[in-house]
Amino acid sequence: MNCHPQIYEGKAKILYATDDPDILLAYFKDDATAFNAQKRGTIVGKGEINCQIAAHLFREIEAKGIATHFIDCPSAHEMRVKSVRILPIEVVVRNIAAGSLCQQTGISLGTILPQPLVEFYYKDDALGDPLLTRDRLLLMELATPEQLESLHSKALQVNTILQEFFQLCGITLVDFKIEFGVDNHNQILLADEISPDSCRLWLTGEPDPNLRVLDKDRFRRDLGNIEDAYQQVLARVLGVRT
Amino acid sequence: MNCHPQIYEGKAKILYATDDPDILLAYFKDDATAFNAQKRGTIVGKGEINCQIAAHLFREIEAKGIATHFIDCPSAHEMRVKSVRILPIEVVVRNIAAGSLCQQTGISLGTILPQPLVEFYYKDDALGDPLLTRDRLLLMELATPEQLESLHSKALQVNTILQEFFQLCGITLVDFKIEFGVDNHNQILLADEISPDSCRLWLTGEPDPNLRVLDKDRFRRDLGNIEDAYQQVLARVLGVRT
Repeated sequence: MNCHPQIYEGKAKILYATDDPDILLAYFKDDATAFNAQKRGTIVGKGEINCQIAAHLFREIEAKGIATHFIDCPSAHEMRVKSVRILPIEVVVRNIAAGSLCQQTGISLGTILPQPLVEFYYKDDALGDPLLTRDRLLLMELATPEQLESLHSKALQVNTILQEFFQLCGITLVDFKIEFGVDNHNQILLADEISPDSCRLWLTGEPDPNLRVLDKDRFRRDLGNIEDAYQQVLARVLGVRT
Repeated sequence: MNCHPQIYEGKAKILYATDDPDILLAYFKDDATAFNAQKRGTIVGKGEINCQIAAHLFREIEAKGIATHFIDCPSAHEMRVKSVRILPIEVVVRNIAAGSLCQQTGISLGTILPQPLVEFYYKDDALGDPLLTRDRLLLMELATPEQLESLHSKALQVNTILQEFFQLCGITLVDFKIEFGVDNHNQILLADEISPDSCRLWLTGEPDPNLRVLDKDRFRRDLGNIEDAYQQVLARVLGVRT
């Protein structure tokens, strides 16, 4: 039961107020969307799975020194988080070429990048979340130059933490999208979620380009066995002792 | 008459070999295309007009110290140019928000930018000439970091030269696209053309947002009087004594 007002409903989560104005409750939904919500569906159990995966990863990241909005999980599909003003920027880190990078550049799917590529996208559904150059981001005043530098640096650190973690799970971290928020003290916190909805995760060593996919690409590309893949990621994430 | 082999046909120009392997002949066509050639038409007299405008602007730019591929014009719609390897990068400089910048960022048409915005696009019709970040451009090895720095610097210099020139013509330079090539001595030369096909040019002081347009947007947006607008740009460019 939640009797607090809903303050935001996104594609995968609902945010509720709590008695503490500095704390929000995130409810993870089973709803799945892709291609800027043109494709919609349900992945049974996704809410609980993603909430638990995200909680585990936030703890890992926090333990390595990156501040996050994560507090705890009062239930399997609910997460208490610190209230932040989300920056309207999707920060994407890519280790292997996939998705829009391939479509927009002609680089082949699966190309290992010589170094992680950090990219910024404008979080705006109406505009289709377009790629931003550094100059466009600053022109649009979506972040200050100092914030941008901080996002870039934190994104690379998160990438290193997640790469090492997923390697222990037998999973290859292809790319991921993260979001950041600013709290009342102007501190930048890693926010939103980290899950198979927001990462491309390939089963390490699996040569079949469809079988290896353990993330939302199964939904985007109608590869089937979506729930199994998400469940496998959760099992591997929880099974790891670091 | 031209009995030399055609070596390339683009959307607005045909390039022919000459007796000198270091020199090509560019023939300016009346063909007009927009939206990645999905819209096609003819602007009567455009070839001659653009050839003469481009010749005049190349001379201005060369006189101000930026090396270009321009040699001379053997006829009204033919330009002799130095043979270069064109870099597959469209360099766009924006002084006022228009076109794809508005569509992709939500910035209002006509917004004066606090400083010129230099952008790079991948010259690839099949991919739709996508916007490039600096990191993508380098990842794709479309230019070296040194070349990129040089393109950025030259683009800003060309912008200053063109802004000052067009101001004397009573024309506001909104934005423009230029291309660069590398010659046999690894020197970077301004190449392609500069014309109402590749610039957004607004009649200074004209408040009507349609009447003020003197460039290919008249064709893109079916504003009519296209030939008159191009002719007016030529007359104003040739009328200027600097």
